[in-house]
Parts: sequence; C-alpha cells; structure tokens
Amino acid sequence: MSNLKHIINAQQFNKELLESIFKTADKAKLFFSQGKRTNIFKDKILATLFYEPSTRTRLSFESAMSHLGGSVISTENARQFSSASKGETLEDTIKIISAYADVIVLRHYESGSAQKASVVSKIPIINAGDGPGQHPTQALLDLYTIKDELGRIDNISIAMVGDLANGRTVRSLCYLLGKYENIKIYFVSPEIIRIKDDIKQYLTKHKIEFREEDSLQAVADKVDVIYQTRIQKERFGDRLEDYAKACGVYVINNEILNLMKDNSIIMHPLPRVNEILPEVDNDPRAAYFRQAENGLYVRIALLRMVLNK
Amino acid sequence: MSNLKHIINAQQFNKELLESIFKTADKAKLFFSQGKRTNIFKDKILATLFYEPSTRTRLSFESAMSHLGGSVISTENARQFSSASKGETLEDTIKIISAYADVIVLRHYESGSAQKASVVSKIPIINAGDGPGQHPTQALLDLYTIKDELGRIDNISIAMVGDLANGRTVRSLCYLLGKYENIKIYFVSPEIIRIKDDIKQYLTKHKIEFREEDSLQAVADKVDVIYQTRIQKERFGDRLEDYAKACGVYVINNEILNLMKDNSIIMHPLPRVNEILPEVDNDPRAAYFRQAENGLYVRIALLRMVLNK
Amino acid sequence: MSNLKHIINAQQFNKELLESIFKTADKAKLFFSQGKRTNIFKDKILATLFYEPSTRTRLSFESAMSHLGGSVISTENARQFSSASKGETLEDTIKIISAYADVIVLRHYESGSAQKASVVSKIPIINAGDGPGQHPTQALLDLYTIKDELGRIDNISIAMVGDLANGRTVRSLCYLLGKYENIKIYFVSPEIIRIKDDIKQYLTKHKIEFREEDSLQAVADKVDVIYQTRIQKERFGDRLEDYAKACGVYVINNEILNLMKDNSIIMHPLPRVNEILPEVDNDPRAAYFRQAENGLYVRIALLRMVLNK
Repeated sequence: MSNLKHIINAQQFNKELLESIFKTADKAKLFFSQGKRTNIFKDKILATLFYEPSTRTRLSFESAMSHLGGSVISTENARQFSSASKGETLEDTIKIISAYADVIVLRHYESGSAQKASVVSKIPIINAGDGPGQHPTQALLDLYTIKDELGRIDNISIAMVGDLANGRTVRSLCYLLGKYENIKIYFVSPEIIRIKDDIKQYLTKHKIEFREEDSLQAVADKVDVIYQTRIQKERFGDRLEDYAKACGVYVINNEILNLMKDNSIIMHPLPRVNEILPEVDNDPRAAYFRQAENGLYVRIALLRMVLNK
Repeated sequence: MSNLKHIINAQQFNKELLESIFKTADKAKLFFSQGKRTNIFKDKILATLFYEPSTRTRLSFESAMSHLGGSVISTENARQFSSASKGETLEDTIKIISAYADVIVLRHYESGSAQKASVVSKIPIINAGDGPGQHPTQALLDLYTIKDELGRIDNISIAMVGDLANGRTVRSLCYLLGKYENIKIYFVSPEIIRIKDDIKQYLTKHKIEFREEDSLQAVADKVDVIYQTRIQKERFGDRLEDYAKACGVYVINNEILNLMKDNSIIMHPLPRVNEILPEVDNDPRAAYFRQAENGLYVRIALLRMVLNK
Repeated sequence: MSNLKHIINAQQFNKELLESIFKTADKAKLFFSQGKRTNIFKDKILATLFYEPSTRTRLSFESAMSHLGGSVISTENARQFSSASKGETLEDTIKIISAYADVIVLRHYESGSAQKASVVSKIPIINAGDGPGQHPTQALLDLYTIKDELGRIDNISIAMVGDLANGRTVRSLCYLLGKYENIKIYFVSPEIIRIKDDIKQYLTKHKIEFREEDSLQAVADKVDVIYQTRIQKERFGDRLEDYAKACGVYVINNEILNLMKDNSIIMHPLPRVNEILPEVDNDPRAAYFRQAENGLYVRIALLRMVLNK
C-alpha cells in the first residue's frame, strides 16, 4: 500500500488512493467480521488525543487498533485535563505525545488543528474532526458504504437531507463524490440551512449535476441513496416555528420508505434523534448501522496505510 | 460451561448455574492469585460503557479482561461525553458499540437499561448496575465470598445491617439466598430504612426464615455472617438526629468483634466510611477486602461464561 | 537489578541506585527508539490512579507499560469519579486496587499520599506527584537528561530559573544534585519566588556551591545547563506589575542563546508558555523535548525495577 503520512482532509484523496483504501477495508471486513483478530500491530501504540469528546469515533479507532493487536493510550477530555489548560500550544503537546506513540488520532475544536499538528509531528496524525473543519474518516466511511451497499459509486443519484449548511459530513462527501462519474445530487433542506455556494461551485467545476429541492417526497423515488442528517435547533435562533416545521417535514418514515426504490439505501452519520423513525430500522434499506460498522473497517485500513503495515 | 447470553439480574441464576460460576471462579482464584496470566481472550475486546462513574467496578472488569489477555475500550463518563447528550437512544448506542467489541459491560443510571440494551445487542451485555435496579455481579461476588469463606451457603445465619430499604446489594443477595437451604436472616436497621415488603414476601415464599432486629449487639453472637452496609444521610431528610443516632448505633468495632463467633465473617460491599472502624481491619474475620478481590475472580468467570471460553 | 519496592521521593535514591536506573534507561532508549517492543510485561497490569489530571505523566507511564507488553487499567479523574467522593479513604482504595493490578502509579493532590498508600499496598506504588510534595520520576528524568546530554553529572554548573519557591521539580532536582561532586548552582528568580531556606541548608550541608542571581544574562555564559521553569501568575497576588516584569525578564530567546556555551543545554519540565520562545526550539541546545522523551525511558527503567523484570 502506498505511504500516506497524515490524514488531514477529504481533498487529499484521489480516486486511486480511495480504491486502495476500500480494497483494504473490504479485506478487513471479510476477515474481522468473522471474529478473527491479528497481531500485526503488536509493536504499535495509538494515542487518541481528544480535545472534545466523541465517544463513538474514539472507540471505533481504539477498537480498530485492538483488532490489529496494537496498544492504545487514550485521553477523552484533553482540553480540560491536559497542559492545554496551562497555556501549552497544540504543537508542543504533539511533539511530546509523538515520542510516546506510533500514530496520533486527534480530535480538536479548532479548524486547521490537524494540519498544524502534522507539521511538527514525528508520527502520523489522523484528523478525527477539527471543529467546523473536516472529519475525513467519516467521509471515507460514507463513501465506502455507498460502494459496499450499491456495488458502485459512479452512476448514482443521492439525496442529501437536513442541515446542509453546517453538516461537516455532507460537505466532505460532496468533495469526494466530485471525483466520480455521472453523479446526481438532490439537496433537500429548509431554506435557512441550504448547501453553501462554495460546494455548489466545486460541484459545477467537477461537472456534478445537482438540484435543490424542498420536498423529500418528491425525490424519494428517484434516488439510490438518501443521506439523512440531524437538524440542529440552535441554527434557527428565534425562528423556533421554522425549526419545528423543518423537523416535521424531513423525517424518514414508512411513507418515505414506500416511495423508495428497492435497491436504494438510507444512510445517516449518526447519532439520529427523530429524523429517522425507529419503524424504518428493520427495513433492509436502512443502512446506517452497517455504515457505522464500516467505520471500523475503514479505520483499520487507514491505520494500516499510515503505518505501512 | 453453559451458555448464558446476557447477565441482567440476580433472578436469572439458578443453583446449578451459580455452582458452575463459582467453580470457574475457584479455578481463576487458584491460578491468577499466583501472578499467572492467560491469553485465552487475545481475540476478544471488552467495551466498558459507563453512564455514571464507578471506578472500582469498571477497573475490576477491565482487570479481569487483562488477566485473560483481552483488550479493553473504555468510557468512564458516557452520559456527559457520548451521543446520549445529543439525544441518541441507548438502543442506538448499543447497536453501534456492539459492532466494535465482543462484550459490553454497561453501567447506567436508569433501572431496566441493561434489559433494554440486551434486546438490541448482537453481543453479550453484562449489567454493572442500572440505577436503583440491579447490580448482579456484586450479588454473585457476595454469594461467592460466603461460600469461599465458610465453605457452604446452605445452613448459614446472616445479619444484614444498615440501609436495607435502598441497598441494592442487600436486595439482590436476598434473592440469591432464596435458592439455598436452611438460611436464617436477621435484618438490623433503623426503622426508617427497614427491608421492604417485596423482599419479605419473596423470602416467605421461599421458606427463608427472617427476623427484624434493632440491635446489632443482640445478633452478633448468633450469626455466621455480618453483611454491613453504608447508611446514606440523604435518606433521612430533615431527621438529622435520627441519622446521627443510626450511624452511631450500627458500627462494627472491637466490641462487636468480641461478640462474634470465631468462624464468622464480616462483609461489606465497600466503600465503607465509618460503619466499620479501622480497628477491625486486621482481624481474620474482616472479609471485606478479600470480598473485593473475589470480585475479580467472579468477573473473570462471568466473562468466560458469556463468551463461551 | 536491585529491588526497590516503592518510589515515593527523590531522597530515597542513592548514587548507586541512580546509576543502575540510568543504565537501564540507556538500554531502553537504545532499544525502543528504534521502534522495537518487548513483551516481558505480558503478565503485568499497571493501574494509573490519578486524583488530579496530568495527561502527559499518565500517558508516558501508560506508553512505557505498552512498550514492555503490559496492560493498563486507567482512571484520569479519580477524585471526582471514585469512591473517594463517598468518603472512602485512600488506604481502602489502594487495598482494593492492589488486588486488581501489579503496580500502581498514583497522582494525588495531597502531600504525603504516596507514602500513605505504600504502607497498605500489596503491590509497588510509584508516586507520580503528590500535591505540593514530590514528583520523583520527573526529578529522575531531569537528572538522566543531564547525564544523557552532557555525558556526566559531576562537575557541572546549572542555572535554575523562574519560580524556585514553588517549583516541585527544582526542589527535587536540588536534592538529587546534592549527591554529586563539584556542582555549582545559580538560582535566578524574582525576589518573591526565591529558593527556600531548607534547600539552601541542604545544599550547604552537602557542600554544593550555590549563588542567587537576578540576571539571567549574567549567568548564561557560565553554565552547562539552564533549567527554565514557568512563573505562575497566582504567586504574585495583587502585584501584577511585578509578575509582568518577572515574565519579561526571565525569557530564553535568541539573545540568551547567543550568550550560552556551545556544549550547554536548555531544559524545561514542560509545559512552557512564553518563558522559552519558539525561536529557540530548533537550536541543538534546546533539550526540553528530548527531556520529555527521556521520561519514557526512565519510566520504563523504573517499572522494570519495581517489578524485578
């Protein structure tokens, strides 16, 4: 596998590299889903350095490391606990931790932190979310899930639903889809949280067809993927009526399910609250828990890639 | 060993299963107390998912897993840190975590949580305390300690002392003792925190002899076991005088020790505050630290049972 | 290696023992800095019991254990989470945890805690800082770094700079330097945070030459080591002007660097804030990040010593 020193953002991956990662993830899925384990990382230590909590992301990386036989040193609240509270720079912290481990998974509250860390680190940095910035491993597992579920990424139509203005995952997924052929995107959201112009410009430049829609019902029967996201109350400020209306409108329930094609899937980066009803969970098209599981296999592939094993 | 998928409550264990667990715990004690370790769990990952802190319980499970050569992914404050704070249901969290590990030890603040979790989990759930509900592994280690110290569980008399109304451990231990022969229980407590009627009815139904007593002195020379518990101030509301009196009366000190039989033991689920004086600690009948150590061996046995190893 | 049951304070180490530890640390550095790992501790469990957070110290011990193939059970906020909040004594906690692990690394907010813990523990206690008391493993890694960088500890001159009254590391390092020959110490600090009399008396007794200085510039060209420390604002109370002045005066920058001898080094226990400017970092004499890395090797040596492996 080719050597990629740090994983900082979605843009750094070209199609060839993505295929290589997905191939390793496929192998990992086949092997580890049978309950097997390896110890190819018995000599490796992962440091998870989380300046804001994200239990799921942290545990999935730590589980990936354990599946590979590696060790983990962990902090789940570095902001409060670490020397950061005494005024130490992130760069100093990274320099020190990089003497204790072989790879760092970094979660930080400031955009650009992962990039800053990678400049001074002696060991690979994996960005596990840097504030409003990027969360590339989530974008990769989203894309992998499309491929894993549908057998292809080219030639798909996808509805992205909910908070498209602020959703980090939607933005990163758009960047990655821009590398594929014959993609059609429907952006379905309340007006106040529509997809931003920079993404539209990027898609136009990469000849990705997209359309903005108000109605989920209107697109449900047209798409291969519904990518649902959580609408956050705080984005609506005083306009609580608009919020309530938005939440009520963009819900995936049995009605939407009945409209959807047989071979289509529903995805969600999770956690979900009410935007997908539990009545949908047992339908085979509900792919969001399989998507979460894929996070394990994609992270195994990424750890192997940055550590050349 | 027989397969028990989840460990949810004390009632699920019959006498045969208890004997089987205790036999495995005996072997674990013999083996591990010599400083030996195995790696029979080298392919297994334990997730400890704690929605409220319980350092001792968490560390004893994690130590059990380490003794068996397994890996641990851990969260000690899931309530504050996890997606729960964003409104995710426990069921969703469990579905996701169960893709990352082979067994989940769950501590939760709501009664019934472990049962709820077990319904959706693909991997075994071990209840490490669900609010006012149950804490079955504590009850099992209590019962194991009686057997380990006295050589039997049938034909014993036991004084349960302190907060009998609210003490989860006392209630669970009563359920388990109901399965044995010729047990006599003395309930010793202030009036306000007496044992509740449901337990009395259960004991009557299972032909367990019991008596309520005001005086610890009056029963100390009659029993094989004193099971002491902490009296919690908050149970007394405004009646601080009653609280102070209760604390002062139900204390195990040298005077009580002098009354006790030579072959009797003192147990306590710990932590203790002032209800057992340090002067008692060095007496061979003070079994509470051995009881805590037994927690390790019983949890090793339970992990082996649910994972069929 | 000789058996040292507990590591409580700097005074317990004589010169012979220090040499033995440094020899093991040398071997660890040679071996582990090449990316190798051992599993000589595959049967050992480390419990890190931290009553106040110290992410760096905790992670360096946990990394040391991982390098040796051992397991870790960890708590990074024992004060808030553990039974301590219910009134349990440290002694009780230690007795219980010592049944779950093979060695305890203890960080506590009260001076004397490590000593108290060692009295009741069945397994080795390593003091990772006990409030205003000691932090012996930091002192050992400081001394090791001097030896590692300069090739000797005898016959050196060292400037200790910054908060000399409150700095635990400076005090401990003085104790250890007292065991060596022909040491000269310059204490450079604002008047309000001068080195205390007990240390001066100790140095006089051990025939260590020392002098108090106001000016860092005046000593920079004389010394083999500048040991810089952070000046804490809260020590100055209302005298904010004095604080600002002190911070401005005792800064290591290119000007100081230009005064320093070619073979001299700059040390700092870290975290640093503004007392060493980033412009200094790339100079080969800037030894503070190598010093932090040495913490790993010294802690590996100490774990091996207390566990006789």
